[in-house]
Amino acid sequence: MRESSLPDLGVGLIGTGFMGRSHALAFHNARTTFDLPVNLKLLALADADPARAARCATSWGFDRSYADWQQLISDPAVNLVAITTPNHLHFPMAMAALEAGKAVYCEKPLAVSLEQAREMHSAAQSAGVVTRVGYNYQHNPLIGLAREMIQSGELGQIVSFQGEFSEDFMGNPQQPWSWRCEQAHAGGALADLGSHLLAMARYLMGDVDAVCADSQTVHAQRPATQGSQAHRPIAVDDHTYALLRFANGARGTFGTSWLKHGYKNHLSFEISGTLGTLAFDQERLNELRLYRSGAPGRDGFQRILAGPAQPEYAAFCPAPGHQLGYNELKTLEVHALIQALAGNSSEGPDFAEALEVERLATAIRVAAKEMRWVKVSDS
Amino acid sequence: MRESSLPDLGVGLIGTGFMGRSHALAFHNARTTFDLPVNLKLLALADADPARAARCATSWGFDRSYADWQQLISDPAVNLVAITTPNHLHFPMAMAALEAGKAVYCEKPLAVSLEQAREMHSAAQSAGVVTRVGYNYQHNPLIGLAREMIQSGELGQIVSFQGEFSEDFMGNPQQPWSWRCEQAHAGGALADLGSHLLAMARYLMGDVDAVCADSQTVHAQRPATQGSQAHRPIAVDDHTYALLRFANGARGTFGTSWLKHGYKNHLSFEISGTLGTLAFDQERLNELRLYRSGAPGRDGFQRILAGPAQPEYAAFCPAPGHQLGYNELKTLEVHALIQALAGNSSEGPDFAEALEVERLATAIRVAAKEMRWVKVSDS
Amino acid sequence: MRESSLPDLGVGLIGTGFMGRSHALAFHNARTTFDLPVNLKLLALADADPARAARCATSWGFDRSYADWQQLISDPAVNLVAITTPNHLHFPMAMAALEAGKAVYCEKPLAVSLEQAREMHSAAQSAGVVTRVGYNYQHNPLIGLAREMIQSGELGQIVSFQGEFSEDFMGNPQQPWSWRCEQAHAGGALADLGSHLLAMARYLMGDVDAVCADSQTVHAQRPATQGSQAHRPIAVDDHTYALLRFANGARGTFGTSWLKHGYKNHLSFEISGTLGTLAFDQERLNELRLYRSGAPGRDGFQRILAGPAQPEYAAFCPAPGHQLGYNELKTLEVHALIQALAGNSSEGPDFAEALEVERLATAIRVAAKEMRWVKVSDS
Amino acid sequence: MRESSLPDLGVGLIGTGFMGRSHALAFHNARTTFDLPVNLKLLALADADPARAARCATSWGFDRSYADWQQLISDPAVNLVAITTPNHLHFPMAMAALEAGKAVYCEKPLAVSLEQAREMHSAAQSAGVVTRVGYNYQHNPLIGLAREMIQSGELGQIVSFQGEFSEDFMGNPQQPWSWRCEQAHAGGALADLGSHLLAMARYLMGDVDAVCADSQTVHAQRPATQGSQAHRPIAVDDHTYALLRFANGARGTFGTSWLKHGYKNHLSFEISGTLGTLAFDQERLNELRLYRSGAPGRDGFQRILAGPAQPEYAAFCPAPGHQLGYNELKTLEVHALIQALAGNSSEGPDFAEALEVERLATAIRVAAKEMRWVKVSDS
Repeated sequence: MRESSLPDLGVGLIGTGFMGRSHALAFHNARTTFDLPVNLKLLALADADPARAARCATSWGFDRSYADWQQLISDPAVNLVAITTPNHLHFPMAMAALEAGKAVYCEKPLAVSLEQAREMHSAAQSAGVVTRVGYNYQHNPLIGLAREMIQSGELGQIVSFQGEFSEDFMGNPQQPWSWRCEQAHAGGALADLGSHLLAMARYLMGDVDAVCADSQTVHAQRPATQGSQAHRPIAVDDHTYALLRFANGARGTFGTSWLKHGYKNHLSFEISGTLGTLAFDQERLNELRLYRSGAPGRDGFQRILAGPAQPEYAAFCPAPGHQLGYNELKTLEVHALIQALAGNSSEGPDFAEALEVERLATAIRVAAKEMRWVKVSDS
Repeated sequence: MRESSLPDLGVGLIGTGFMGRSHALAFHNARTTFDLPVNLKLLALADADPARAARCATSWGFDRSYADWQQLISDPAVNLVAITTPNHLHFPMAMAALEAGKAVYCEKPLAVSLEQAREMHSAAQSAGVVTRVGYNYQHNPLIGLAREMIQSGELGQIVSFQGEFSEDFMGNPQQPWSWRCEQAHAGGALADLGSHLLAMARYLMGDVDAVCADSQTVHAQRPATQGSQAHRPIAVDDHTYALLRFANGARGTFGTSWLKHGYKNHLSFEISGTLGTLAFDQERLNELRLYRSGAPGRDGFQRILAGPAQPEYAAFCPAPGHQLGYNELKTLEVHALIQALAGNSSEGPDFAEALEVERLATAIRVAAKEMRWVKVSDS
Repeated sequence: MRESSLPDLGVGLIGTGFMGRSHALAFHNARTTFDLPVNLKLLALADADPARAARCATSWGFDRSYADWQQLISDPAVNLVAITTPNHLHFPMAMAALEAGKAVYCEKPLAVSLEQAREMHSAAQSAGVVTRVGYNYQHNPLIGLAREMIQSGELGQIVSFQGEFSEDFMGNPQQPWSWRCEQAHAGGALADLGSHLLAMARYLMGDVDAVCADSQTVHAQRPATQGSQAHRPIAVDDHTYALLRFANGARGTFGTSWLKHGYKNHLSFEISGTLGTLAFDQERLNELRLYRSGAPGRDGFQRILAGPAQPEYAAFCPAPGHQLGYNELKTLEVHALIQALAGNSSEGPDFAEALEVERLATAIRVAAKEMRWVKVSDS
Repeated sequence: MRESSLPDLGVGLIGTGFMGRSHALAFHNARTTFDLPVNLKLLALADADPARAARCATSWGFDRSYADWQQLISDPAVNLVAITTPNHLHFPMAMAALEAGKAVYCEKPLAVSLEQAREMHSAAQSAGVVTRVGYNYQHNPLIGLAREMIQSGELGQIVSFQGEFSEDFMGNPQQPWSWRCEQAHAGGALADLGSHLLAMARYLMGDVDAVCADSQTVHAQRPATQGSQAHRPIAVDDHTYALLRFANGARGTFGTSWLKHGYKNHLSFEISGTLGTLAFDQERLNELRLYRSGAPGRDGFQRILAGPAQPEYAAFCPAPGHQLGYNELKTLEVHALIQALAGNSSEGPDFAEALEVERLATAIRVAAKEMRWVKVSDS
């Protein structure tokens, strides 16, 4: 029997919202798509609503359910705790899991404050377990290709980065208040969207030394609920822009907005070096635009389509151009995590890296507030 | 208990290749993504290699495995037989399953000859069971939107269709012979790729009355195997072009090629009416290009991104622009099939429709061979 | 003095409509842009309305004006007669000019019937003068690059051509009748638009051996004038589609429509060979899409921007990406004509070539009418 | 006679390089394209090389030539002095022309220092003549449409601007030194390219209140000449990025680079408001991308093609989608200037506006040097 020869990996998942289901799908698909080095077991699912927990456990193929997430963490068969609850719960849940010596897979953002993030990182170091944070976009095979091009020198010395992550779900001033509008829940465009782009920038370009920034709350109040006459004041940023100085010498810009009409998932960037330029837009996640300096009249931006030349793509489909979806990036994230748990070297953002992302976001916040350049290492 | 209140649906899957795994993923994901009207059970997996059958059954979550597909069909707990084997096996397997009164979900093409397709359709009618054929591209939520626009009159009277399905995997003359190069296995560009586009044309536009066509074998021989000096003669088409006259009055063109360099999954079409035009390309499956006649200087082709405004998309993701992948179209196909099995009205190509697709492909083949216009109803 | 050392070239232009002005601009711009091998003189302008003729002559820099085009032709200082009048006048004017031994530059289509075209070609041969027909799109520097790639074998053996020229100016059924709706004036989509694409196909691909085609008049009547209740019957094609067999062995499709909403100048084609594919769309006339088969995962369609690597572009602008406009293609056409007049070898469609274009269009018309394959050489 | 009833406008053009010829073409074409309110005379052409001056005068249709530009300015028949010489000569030539009471049409940048620009503006005010500076990109009909949309409120309250002007002509580190690398000649990416984008930002968005910026010289030395072993130190910026705060409340980013591979004329921007977003890229100057918030599932970015719905386009072509070129933007610039000279209200950047552009560029330079936010009005 194949199963018996592999170590068990018992997964405990907390949360049954959009990201909860996305995790459940990803664990299933990782098992069907890859030859895993573990015997993956979907062990337990937790949701504060016991009926919902039980129902989802059945539909999603989990062995048992809990209403109390602490019980899930304490379940001895659970080796890995996946956290998909609202942002402010990341801290207590992750700390409890680390305390119990469990590996932790936490949705982004890691925490709702830099101080929390520092504590979580410190606890993870003490626990000595594998951790991962859900910056799923960087698991795209084409992002892997982009990183390889950058690191191999195929683009020459990197000189610039220009990144933007814009959506428009808050574009209508009548869009009501939500928890995403609260600083205490890590709300605002910078925390909600921008942190994905900062993680991506770090993944591809490395450390940022210094930033200057500008933030604005365009709509200072919003209806308390859809259609309500009552309004609530809004303090978080609707959009934030920054200048970035990278440790590798590159310069560039950063922008994030949740009210830029027309964009739905516009995590995009252009990275340019002395030999070429590459560009990416999450709204066309299966394409990389690449320019390599060539013969005049014969060169131009190329559209590279994802295909089996990238191993992570090949796992899903043997033919190029068939396209991966957003949920499959999550499967790739889970697969990388499982490889790390099995002791195979595997890249992916852990709590240490997530702390650096939070530090960078904090530096941008300070720079915007104080209208001055800020060294990231000062945060 | 939720499960007990729903009828069981026992799935038996034959084949463990790319499409076999794609089906396995799709059944899993349908269960996690949708509230199914059945208690879906992955019951049995068959592969001629018993070890492989057992290993895949374990990885993919099937209860048991068979080396003999006939045994799988005979398993009383199997209600639905999914066939993902090479084309020439579709006929015997589907006929046996129908004989046993099982619902059948067969990969395209339905058969390797029009005569077989006729028999299969006839057997399905006699059996009175649900059948489906894997023309998965039409389950794209944006294709649903396109069909709705066409049928609602949003584009006015439809006047033209121009479609092309090109790839380039046979573009290199040194690409060796494979079973896809044999007529007896339903090989050639028209059968392998073109049939997808013909199914799409019928789904969106309805019946085709008459065709004229031109087919060519560009590379009359290919290496017997990769790098071999020995060559095998090739008789199937490398590319085929046709003129189409639709029953709705529209006219247009059809093209399919497996040697058009640069295209990886270019199932594409433009449909134009008296009020507008829509265009689609499978290489950007999350986008529909739409033009509606408007104010001069203010109108232009729009890029509509898939999003939760389409219910099938919403099942996977609550946010627009995040993108579905190829495998998720398969999940949607499975979901539609399950709804049909549960007696809920559900669209999707059954054996009757697949027979019409084969009839149309045959008409094109005859028209090309005899260099004359052919009425489709004569095939 | 520079002028005195060069032979004079006296230009006589007939017509002051859109194309008349376009010619005037082109002659001016050719003089300023290029070092011409002649002393170009804008000698005479003819329009049936003498006041308009005089006014335009002044504005456009012509020495004198005529109300009678025959007088312009007879003017001994006129060496070149440029004809921009309605289609049915091309024949008498060109014949008179050839009779007078003058070089002729005639707008497309050459004539309103194949018989006329034959006579004009024959007269041109007898006269032994330089002739040119205004298929201006082929003077685009990027079309020159495309042709060079095809002829040099850079794309390998050419296997397919797919071309379409669609616009939408007749897309609204209430768009009234005009002379373009009359067969006797070379009206209809095929003659008006399609002939440009046929000329382009011949320029890039060479002779077409055989065609099959389908033509349709979608709107069988149109208002006699804008908003009128009175209607006129329409006999010319609204759209036409064809299958093409080229003498070089390539196969493919042709389409032309003047009612395809969303397209304004969509003269487009894709040409594919055993080593790559190139694609062009006149709506982005400064771009060529090129795919060359390359390393998997590193190849993709490139967007080549027009630039000074193409000599014809360099004449207008020393920097790439600045873009030429439609009128500058006309300047390039005029320049090629002047080089031919100066005895320098210069490509460009003469009456012989225009006759071949008319022959091909005629074959398509016959094929559509008789619903059968037609050899082009039979027309 | 038409000419006699209109006032003469005698044009004197200084410079015979690329921009000199571009001006000559533009004056010719303005006359042929528009019904001008003046009798336009190409009177005199000046170049320090008398033979070249004479030769170009003949080719380009000027009455006479001068080797001494002061003589051209003194020519009593010259009413308008057009300056297309290297940047450091703009100041003495414009000052002399203003001194002589002549209207001045000067290529950008206005001057090589803010102090010069101030003096030139002051002299223009004293002279009371019409002045224009060649920020030609803003004469694009689609830019006019964009401005109309912004000013009419069609996009709602404007909240963001993101602009970039990148090219790659200095992308190769072996690209040698040129005068463009000297601060004293207004060299560097910001002055050479960025100023065009700043002018555009002001044209569309109005005043900028404050800026923060970052500038870098990536290649601190370059070969003295092509292929030379000797190198010259470079002090000007290779790329510059900035944060912008507009007086209308909008925020955003600015970037300019002359070493971003793949871009040839990438003057681009996105402007977003509470009702929609528009985007433009000079590399596709005949297209405007527009998003207007609409029905979910039916809205998306539109590609608006230039056409006769914009009056400036209609002057060149009666059909949409045929495309204007770079040189035609120059013709539109000249036409606007002539209308202003005739006393008709006409928009366009005069010396006062060019001073504001220089002030803004200077603020960016100071902000980058001192690494702090700078109020533009302090410059």
